[in-house]
Amino acid sequence: MSSSEIFIPQGFSFSSGTAGIKSSGKPDLAFIEASEGTTAAAVFTKNRVVAAPLIVGRESLAKSKGKVRAVVVNSGNANCATGKPGIAACVEVCKKAAKLMAIPRDQVFSSSTGIIGVPLPFEKILNRLPEVVTSKESSRQAAQKFAETIMTTDTKPKLASVRVEVGKKEFSLLGIAKGAGMIHPQMATMLVYLMTDIAASPKQLQRLLRSTCDNTFNCLSIDGDTSTNDTALLLASGQSGLGVTKQFAGALHQVCQSLAEQIVSDGEGVKHVIHLFIEQAKTRAEALHVAKAIAHSLLVKTAWAGADPNWGRILSTIGSCGIAVDPAKIDIAIGSQTVFQKGAIRPFDEKQAHAELSEPTCDVRVKLRRGKAGICFLTTDLTTEYVHINADYST
Amino acid sequence: MSSSEIFIPQGFSFSSGTAGIKSSGKPDLAFIEASEGTTAAAVFTKNRVVAAPLIVGRESLAKSKGKVRAVVVNSGNANCATGKPGIAACVEVCKKAAKLMAIPRDQVFSSSTGIIGVPLPFEKILNRLPEVVTSKESSRQAAQKFAETIMTTDTKPKLASVRVEVGKKEFSLLGIAKGAGMIHPQMATMLVYLMTDIAASPKQLQRLLRSTCDNTFNCLSIDGDTSTNDTALLLASGQSGLGVTKQFAGALHQVCQSLAEQIVSDGEGVKHVIHLFIEQAKTRAEALHVAKAIAHSLLVKTAWAGADPNWGRILSTIGSCGIAVDPAKIDIAIGSQTVFQKGAIRPFDEKQAHAELSEPTCDVRVKLRRGKAGICFLTTDLTTEYVHINADYST
Repeated sequence: MSSSEIFIPQGFSFSSGTAGIKSSGKPDLAFIEASEGTTAAAVFTKNRVVAAPLIVGRESLAKSKGKVRAVVVNSGNANCATGKPGIAACVEVCKKAAKLMAIPRDQVFSSSTGIIGVPLPFEKILNRLPEVVTSKESSRQAAQKFAETIMTTDTKPKLASVRVEVGKKEFSLLGIAKGAGMIHPQMATMLVYLMTDIAASPKQLQRLLRSTCDNTFNCLSIDGDTSTNDTALLLASGQSGLGVTKQFAGALHQVCQSLAEQIVSDGEGVKHVIHLFIEQAKTRAEALHVAKAIAHSLLVKTAWAGADPNWGRILSTIGSCGIAVDPAKIDIAIGSQTVFQKGAIRPFDEKQAHAELSEPTCDVRVKLRRGKAGICFLTTDLTTEYVHINADYST
Repeated sequence: MSSSEIFIPQGFSFSSGTAGIKSSGKPDLAFIEASEGTTAAAVFTKNRVVAAPLIVGRESLAKSKGKVRAVVVNSGNANCATGKPGIAACVEVCKKAAKLMAIPRDQVFSSSTGIIGVPLPFEKILNRLPEVVTSKESSRQAAQKFAETIMTTDTKPKLASVRVEVGKKEFSLLGIAKGAGMIHPQMATMLVYLMTDIAASPKQLQRLLRSTCDNTFNCLSIDGDTSTNDTALLLASGQSGLGVTKQFAGALHQVCQSLAEQIVSDGEGVKHVIHLFIEQAKTRAEALHVAKAIAHSLLVKTAWAGADPNWGRILSTIGSCGIAVDPAKIDIAIGSQTVFQKGAIRPFDEKQAHAELSEPTCDVRVKLRRGKAGICFLTTDLTTEYVHINADYST
């Protein structure tokens, strides 16, 4: 599945424009129109500090009972920590789009990504909205442009798509994402929009989206910080005439996993992506806990930056993560070699390990011998470039 | 209290030598002799992966019922993840020192700091021990030399000392520490030796040491990683004729806090030390949790590296740390200015905030408005130099 194959699900069209929020003058206003009857589900950041559009969006989805006809996204400003005026600004944007489309206000879903704590210049959005709403197209080019418009510190647009035949019919699923590089000078945001032409109730969509996110986007970490604006939205137009199937669940996982990998490999300053497998944990939660501890250890991440097969740092991190592991039962493999086995170093070819860690992606496997649960977690190294990007005086 | 004032408590003498463990050829074997009847207490790392000397030391303290007559420390090798041969090597070192001094083996306490996973060249230590044991001196110079010998990536020896008059008598307390920079190429270690001439039972010492460590060494973080070898040892010779008093508890806190500050400001690549105050938390544990979340956030630490008064990253970290904070009740102060108050930005002089963060130390205060508990936590920025030090291929 490459991003060059873009399948546009029936019932969706896209447009973009330049409202003048980004100081670079690049496009910063993106729009999706969904056909009548489109159902929706969303998951949001678990951060207690949430941006205005998340508060408004959650409320709108409840009021509309899971119906969405339009998505308005601005980049360049996160509309976060902006207080009541921030919420009012978001409502104004939704109102305007609703008026232009002659639909209820609560069927407009809005996202913002960019700097925190700066009032959203919503008049700029209102001025540009009429042109954006009327210029929508149901084309690959328009979807690609949408993906570019929502970028902030991303260096590449992120799209993933599948088309699946089921009997004589077929459904399409298109995912567009941005993030999770941190916005200069403030916070990051991961935004994910998933569109399909299957038919599903908002409840079905919510259940599927939650479990898929848990296994894809919630299993990645670049720097361990959680944005105030993270949002994933799943929209289903129903126009394919197909319902929720196992194939659809598989397609959703596949598209989300591809977007997750695209996000991680485009992380700030990232040179190496690590597929971190935690195996034989007691529970999935335990495996996730160990994975996060390793993925957040500065010593481990800097070792990876140097392609250093340093198992001592991994072992020590496991030992201090609060789980009653027995070091004498732990195995650690780096690339294709087991380097630590049942509590002792296992002689290995260091040059080969260094070479494998020097590749753009490498597997690291930890076996805990405590149970049968496991997880694959996506993470990255920590480079001086990351520090440069995030350390420059900028507020 | 400066490290230039060194008071040697009665009953202690020091020596150092070069066993040849450090490839640099610098001194790497250090020794303390304590007079007969010296009582002891120790606290160790909470990491589940612990080095051989910690296993042996814990056992010896139990067997000797809290008596210590000698401390043997080697730098250059951590004797960790070395399996049963590592424990045997440590026992050999203790045996040899005990034989030379004609004391029971379990009254010798041993520490190691340096590379993980490499067998301890204990014969080198055995060869050098006779000379080291006989050359001990009860002098400031010898104590200073001890502090230098246990250094690894430390750039400065770390000593702190007080002498307190109580009526017509006086007691002295001397602390010597190393760490917590990370040893190239593997793990770090914080070692702390505290010596006094008060008289106290091992139980009294243990209680005092535990609570003092909780409020000093356990309230600092450079990179969030916990060493496999961390050890703090408190020895009391009883020779001053004074017992445990409030003055002694105060002196112990003062010496430990000074050593903690010395350790943090000598952290790898550290340019800025932050005194992080978490105020009005529900409990001390909650305040500590919030402090650690902020101290471990890469985005916050890199902002500090750039002396960037970026309150958005601090706010977002508090929001995502798992405590049910209400963002609308949070205040954040950087240096002398409140920059965020009750959920909204408070206009502040950015140049002044930048200037204050550019100083070697700066206060950052977070008010949660949830209760009456608070904490002061010592932490640091994250610089490209830290990444350089820890990312070079080296295993």
